[in-house]
Amino acid sequence: MSTRSLVTLDVDEARELLMTAGVGHIAYESRRGVDVTPVNYRVDGDTIFIRTVVDGTLAELAPGPETVAFLVTYLDRLSQTGWSVKVRGPIRAVDETSRPPAVDPEPWMGFPGTVLLGLTIEELTGRRVA
Amino acid sequence: MSTRSLVTLDVDEARELLMTAGVGHIAYESRRGVDVTPVNYRVDGDTIFIRTVVDGTLAELAPGPETVAFLVTYLDRLSQTGWSVKVRGPIRAVDETSRPPAVDPEPWMGFPGTVLLGLTIEELTGRRVA
Repeated sequence: MSTRSLVTLDVDEARELLMTAGVGHIAYESRRGVDVTPVNYRVDGDTIFIRTVVDGTLAELAPGPETVAFLVTYLDRLSQTGWSVKVRGPIRAVDETSRPPAVDPEPWMGFPGTVLLGLTIEELTGRRVA
Repeated sequence: MSTRSLVTLDVDEARELLMTAGVGHIAYESRRGVDVTPVNYRVDGDTIFIRTVVDGTLAELAPGPETVAFLVTYLDRLSQTGWSVKVRGPIRAVDETSRPPAVDPEPWMGFPGTVLLGLTIEELTGRRVA
């Protein structure tokens, strides 16, 4: 029997955790149906920046805006404790000038030809299992 | 400039990695739109078993079948290497007798009242970034 408890985080806690991590999972509607992809990300203000290869599935989101779910999770499998932060909002390609120079997410693959996506944080929630 | 390379895994490799891990991310269409949730899972044959709380969002999938995307990822953030295995297929609630007794996935929260979901592996793909 589990003695773990689930705690809802307030927005400040959720944002702080979002800022500390750098890898998340984005769920979106692709041409083939619902899909999910791990991505590197960086946050500036209310925007999550993601860079992806131009010929990848995620690049389908460039025309936007499509509302997606973005989840950042830290889980300790053995103790089954951890936290997760979820963002909902519209995503679309954004101009390189819309990000501060220091906020430059790296795509998983360094192939030439990437597109910069911006996900607007419309909803931010978080939970902790302790 | 990156020197990493992306390798497509064959089905046997992908299945082996799927069997070694125990936590994945499931992307699905919820009442609120696309959603993504981390889950514990266990595999038997062509079925991925997931147990979830009856009053949770994932339980919406019980009536099924709805086609979902399921991703298991191992990523080393510093070296930016790792692998991911993706499954597509229909998910629905299944009877407890459909799983071998030893294959019993634990829900994240141990609250009483869970539903057992079975995801049929229709498509299995994997990639490694090395």
